[in-house]
Amino acid sequence: MPIPLSPLAPRSYPELPAIAGVRLAVADAGIRYKDRTDVLLVELAEGTSAAGVFTRSLTASAPVLACREALASGKARALVVNSGNSNAFTGSVGIKSVAHVVDKACALFGCKASEVYTASTGVIGERLPDDKITGILGEMAKSLSENAWQQAARAIMTTDTYPKMATRTASIGGVTVTLNGIAKGSGMIAPDMATMLAFVFTDAHIPASALQQMLSETNATTFNCVTVDGDTSTSDTLLLFATGKAKNPAGDYADFKRALHEVLHELALHVVKDGEGAEKLVAITVAGADSDKAARTIGMSIANSPLVKTALAASDANWGRIVMAVGKAGEKADRDKLMIKIGGVMIAKNGEADPAYREAQIAPHMQGRDIKIEVDVGIGAGKATVYTCDLTHAYIDINGSYRT
Amino acid sequence: MPIPLSPLAPRSYPELPAIAGVRLAVADAGIRYKDRTDVLLVELAEGTSAAGVFTRSLTASAPVLACREALASGKARALVVNSGNSNAFTGSVGIKSVAHVVDKACALFGCKASEVYTASTGVIGERLPDDKITGILGEMAKSLSENAWQQAARAIMTTDTYPKMATRTASIGGVTVTLNGIAKGSGMIAPDMATMLAFVFTDAHIPASALQQMLSETNATTFNCVTVDGDTSTSDTLLLFATGKAKNPAGDYADFKRALHEVLHELALHVVKDGEGAEKLVAITVAGADSDKAARTIGMSIANSPLVKTALAASDANWGRIVMAVGKAGEKADRDKLMIKIGGVMIAKNGEADPAYREAQIAPHMQGRDIKIEVDVGIGAGKATVYTCDLTHAYIDINGSYRT
Repeated sequence: MPIPLSPLAPRSYPELPAIAGVRLAVADAGIRYKDRTDVLLVELAEGTSAAGVFTRSLTASAPVLACREALASGKARALVVNSGNSNAFTGSVGIKSVAHVVDKACALFGCKASEVYTASTGVIGERLPDDKITGILGEMAKSLSENAWQQAARAIMTTDTYPKMATRTASIGGVTVTLNGIAKGSGMIAPDMATMLAFVFTDAHIPASALQQMLSETNATTFNCVTVDGDTSTSDTLLLFATGKAKNPAGDYADFKRALHEVLHELALHVVKDGEGAEKLVAITVAGADSDKAARTIGMSIANSPLVKTALAASDANWGRIVMAVGKAGEKADRDKLMIKIGGVMIAKNGEADPAYREAQIAPHMQGRDIKIEVDVGIGAGKATVYTCDLTHAYIDINGSYRT
Repeated sequence: MPIPLSPLAPRSYPELPAIAGVRLAVADAGIRYKDRTDVLLVELAEGTSAAGVFTRSLTASAPVLACREALASGKARALVVNSGNSNAFTGSVGIKSVAHVVDKACALFGCKASEVYTASTGVIGERLPDDKITGILGEMAKSLSENAWQQAARAIMTTDTYPKMATRTASIGGVTVTLNGIAKGSGMIAPDMATMLAFVFTDAHIPASALQQMLSETNATTFNCVTVDGDTSTSDTLLLFATGKAKNPAGDYADFKRALHEVLHELALHVVKDGEGAEKLVAITVAGADSDKAARTIGMSIANSPLVKTALAASDANWGRIVMAVGKAGEKADRDKLMIKIGGVMIAKNGEADPAYREAQIAPHMQGRDIKIEVDVGIGAGKATVYTCDLTHAYIDINGSYRT
């Protein structure tokens, strides 16, 4: 079944500039899809440092387990990604498949296994035909290019309807560095560490430990604050590679962290905008909670509620369902101080509907593509913003036919 | 929008016998629905003891708050239920609405406010037109009957497509007692104490404390083990009334508890079978968990996964999504010992697909109405069975138009 382009897709894609020390190649290995690319190979210059966050799923995929091990080195020379098969729940055979791919990359680039990262996305529980990947890596290594960013973003797609890219620059000690990021969605999205797959590359020179700390912190307020369907993937992987080619001095990374947050935020929003069947992007801000963590929990309770999401799909301002979702979240909330706004319009306050509120006030907002929901639970100073999409018939269609 | 009868509806409804000390009446108060009954009045004989469990939602409705208070008395003389408006998130006005209804019932039956219970189900956040109820209670009291059970079950329906009833007998000290139960669903179903509304009546003579203990225990493995959409209602109410008219001696309530469990189990399954848009009833048994509680959490993670539920709607044995749902549940599971069966057929064991498994083996089972999923997570002896339904286009249709 062809999936139509998301109505929330951007009008144009950003041009991602070359990043010194990063070369990319894509190929069609025929893992599952026909007539499209499904393997991405990235060569990283010697001296590249690495950071990563992964799914907290207890049934994490073989590539996730292998990446966690490799990351102990803090170094990277290559990344191999395939779509169409997630190599999850594939037992010892799955572990061996990763090793075959890693070994091949080591031979091509003359590096150690601890410097090679792999990621796989697609169907769970089927053996990865790793020979299809190892068989073409040699050819791919000959076609590596500094400019294949959009091709790379396309090769890692599954049910995504558009490639997801973001780029920023930042200054470290007076030296300008560049960050490029690519990501994929678009179902099984409720990142518990990172979205299914996202990769960020920079020419900045930053040690792995500092890189890891910044990645973990920015991930918490970006990928970990979006949801499509509340289903956490077995394959969530977010990797950040810094080649060091910009030769910036060590020092204050505040501006780099700002740029990193912007790249991750932009990619995370793309994942929601291209959520399976999505027709609306919904931003939910929760304030007045016991803590930021509690605010995120309440926000996610609203964002994952099928009743809230089906009402949004129908452009129905059924705010009683927001009350329900606050109530079931399990975090402290003062029912008699609860405040709800949609599209900036006060709907409920002090535990009941605002007498001045008329549904016609927000009808135009509900019909739009960008929905803003604000909730204050009247307990403390905790705050969080989470993003989700609506639940439409297309979600059911896409997920009833995913394997056929 | 008329909602078609659930394909999982029973071929016929049970005939509920009269229960000494219980009389019922229904009426059309025009609260929201047109041309159907929406109020139920139940008169309970003097000496009736009561037990109840309610939603744990922090935004519980006004009737739930009032029932919790009344239950301290352990006694009951009347129950008033309305559909069409849940009187939830209605502030101090909502509390007053309950008081008006309770006062009217007290006047009719010459009882105390602590002996009157009310329940409301329907739209959240709109003021209950309590005068419509108080205005007809007097007339209703004149038409009370021992035999209006099916009418009672119909009057409390919202998006339900059929009335839900169950009856059993039990023996206490050689005396036969009868239990009748009615319930309603059918969306916002993820009971955290009880389903939206369920009422059980018996002529047994049992003190309130023993009644409460049995109700809490049997509720935990019946209503608290079903889910339609993971959205916990603000109105969940399960009440059990014992008139004492059977004049059984005090003593061993084991057989009564068995019958009570059967009534609650049957009603809970009806709630799932009539879940919004449901086309399949799905039983999920989780074994080998760290505890029974952990097994229930894992079962609910599977039962609430939109990816699992959309695959089921498409009769697709996409068991990789079961792996995902086990992984995201947050409870201990040994990925390398994980076992999955569907329809009794072994699909996965020891952390990977069973080589002998062929999808054709379970295709007929997947096409059926009754789906059985068994999972063993290989950690301990914890076990639980939970019930859910599939996620179909009708769920989206029903919930996009609920208020219109």
